[in-house]
Amino acid sequence: MATIQDVAQRAGVSVSTVSNVLNGRTDRMRRETLERVEAAIRALQFTPNKLAQQLKTGHTPLLGLLVPSMANPMYGHIAREVEAAAQEHYGHRLLIGSTYRDRDKEASFFDDLLAHGVRKVIVISSLSDEGHFEAAAARGMAVVSYDRRATPGRRTRVSHVTPDNFEAARLATQHLIDKGHRQLAFATVAGMTMSRSAKIAGFQAAADAAGLRKSARVIDGGPLNEYGDSVIADVGRSIGAKLAAGGARPTGIVALNDLMAMGVMAGARDGGLQVPRDLSVVGIDGLFLFALSDPPLTTVQLPVREMARAMVDEAMHRGPDAGSEEHERVFAPDGLIERGSVAALSARVAKTPVRR
Amino acid sequence: MATIQDVAQRAGVSVSTVSNVLNGRTDRMRRETLERVEAAIRALQFTPNKLAQQLKTGHTPLLGLLVPSMANPMYGHIAREVEAAAQEHYGHRLLIGSTYRDRDKEASFFDDLLAHGVRKVIVISSLSDEGHFEAAAARGMAVVSYDRRATPGRRTRVSHVTPDNFEAARLATQHLIDKGHRQLAFATVAGMTMSRSAKIAGFQAAADAAGLRKSARVIDGGPLNEYGDSVIADVGRSIGAKLAAGGARPTGIVALNDLMAMGVMAGARDGGLQVPRDLSVVGIDGLFLFALSDPPLTTVQLPVREMARAMVDEAMHRGPDAGSEEHERVFAPDGLIERGSVAALSARVAKTPVRR
Repeated sequence: MATIQDVAQRAGVSVSTVSNVLNGRTDRMRRETLERVEAAIRALQFTPNKLAQQLKTGHTPLLGLLVPSMANPMYGHIAREVEAAAQEHYGHRLLIGSTYRDRDKEASFFDDLLAHGVRKVIVISSLSDEGHFEAAAARGMAVVSYDRRATPGRRTRVSHVTPDNFEAARLATQHLIDKGHRQLAFATVAGMTMSRSAKIAGFQAAADAAGLRKSARVIDGGPLNEYGDSVIADVGRSIGAKLAAGGARPTGIVALNDLMAMGVMAGARDGGLQVPRDLSVVGIDGLFLFALSDPPLTTVQLPVREMARAMVDEAMHRGPDAGSEEHERVFAPDGLIERGSVAALSARVAKTPVRR
Repeated sequence: MATIQDVAQRAGVSVSTVSNVLNGRTDRMRRETLERVEAAIRALQFTPNKLAQQLKTGHTPLLGLLVPSMANPMYGHIAREVEAAAQEHYGHRLLIGSTYRDRDKEASFFDDLLAHGVRKVIVISSLSDEGHFEAAAARGMAVVSYDRRATPGRRTRVSHVTPDNFEAARLATQHLIDKGHRQLAFATVAGMTMSRSAKIAGFQAAADAAGLRKSARVIDGGPLNEYGDSVIADVGRSIGAKLAAGGARPTGIVALNDLMAMGVMAGARDGGLQVPRDLSVVGIDGLFLFALSDPPLTTVQLPVREMARAMVDEAMHRGPDAGSEEHERVFAPDGLIERGSVAALSARVAKTPVRR
């Protein structure tokens, strides 16, 4: 990492001149000198780290948190738990941003964090390409990636904390199978994140194990718009409505997450189906909100508090020299919460779905 | 505002010594000198403003946002809109915190913002005592308070942006009256914020105007726990369950907000009632999430995007010298969204509530 001495040397000025620039005492400085110092600061990507620390002496330092969208209540929930862990255990506050899983938005957030002297960031993204995470880590940032595992066989400076998405979807699917469902579907959105593909694999594994591969299909409801994850419910709703309108349809459906499950149920109702009589739905997340719905959502509970704590611990303890170790923590789901959105099917009903 | 010169004078050292402290170049400094400078920095509440700006040259500055709890999806929604307005129009990022409407937590967040050189903050709180907001404003912070009006007749340095909470509750109540409801209730939680009392007044005004004051009551579901606003649904649920269990009950209920309305509906169902047949429920907020519920929630839509934009504009344009002007913007609700949680009552039913 560049020091103030490096900047001074590159700019051909004294350390105290650089200090004057950093302190804003530039009124009596020649414009040409100022520009040379600023150019050297940029060229060396110099961030006055100790200085920033000093400014904050006795005050709360910051942790960056990037979420796809704060309007998805699951990310609000995670953010609350991350905030609590960061504050209670490390006295840090959150600098937060929504990036809609956009690589450029994420990279630009990293730049801003570095400019503010923030050296720790948790990113909820699950993109398969983490090149921009690695670049930030190479610049001295402790980066924790949520909702995907590390790429096997590849060295990484990024820590990974994730629910076992494969297992979560497998559990959800197995529950439908246990309840007599044979026509199965997994509802997702366009665009393959690591977490989405792990869930699809878990869905298919459960179907395979029950000899149901042929009657288990993945339904892609299409792309999210600029609002990203917050409109995932709308995609679910259109899937539900299409299922209600179409001919052969699954009797049991696993949704990508709780918000999508709520959308699928609403769309099915829009199309005249009854949940769970005509269509059983299982979510993944375990959000408290959707215990309030009618029927309350059966869902796989993820251990949000434990994962939040693990992410914060990783961000705090992962120094710039931790590059050679693999840091990956995978959390098993807490289990399936059986509420009211799954019906038990008799063998007959399972083969010929009832319509109202 | 204190300058670096003031600090040097108070500590009895040169400006460059103070600069050395600020830059972390303290290895060869006597401990006693260091302590004197640090004490002067604290005593003068000195925050090296220009310096902080300089560090950030060409980078995104910060806006503080305090919410009661990020786990309440309404605040996630507001945060998303605030973030979008701050980024798109002013290139600012968010430093966010949940404070559970706790005065001490809010005050400590202000301290941290000042320490980070952040001079603009939006606070969602609605506490009646804003003494700690005024103190922050006096220290040079542009403070925007959401969800309450300014205290009449009192000078304030704080800007206020709020929905017309009185009108929102009046609209919700009037809708029930228009649908034939005569036994009315307003469901709230313990602890009187300005926004809660404005809503109760609006509820009572609508009842008064219809000659229904005697049959309109306020139901206080009790206190929130440490998780604050995120458990407001639980309070609503216990109200719904009590209404189902008790004898005489309202036919129509206005809930403090959408989350509470969802709780009331769930509790009523727990107790064997049907919504809306046995109990009609109206929310206030207009969250997209609760259009997914069954029945979908009838609610008063607040103009969240416009309010978020106004808050950000206020925070950006309110300088430290704006103290003498009143800055208050009150936003009328967009209107009532009629969905499925209110039933039209015949006169008979309105007088003798049906039980299942």
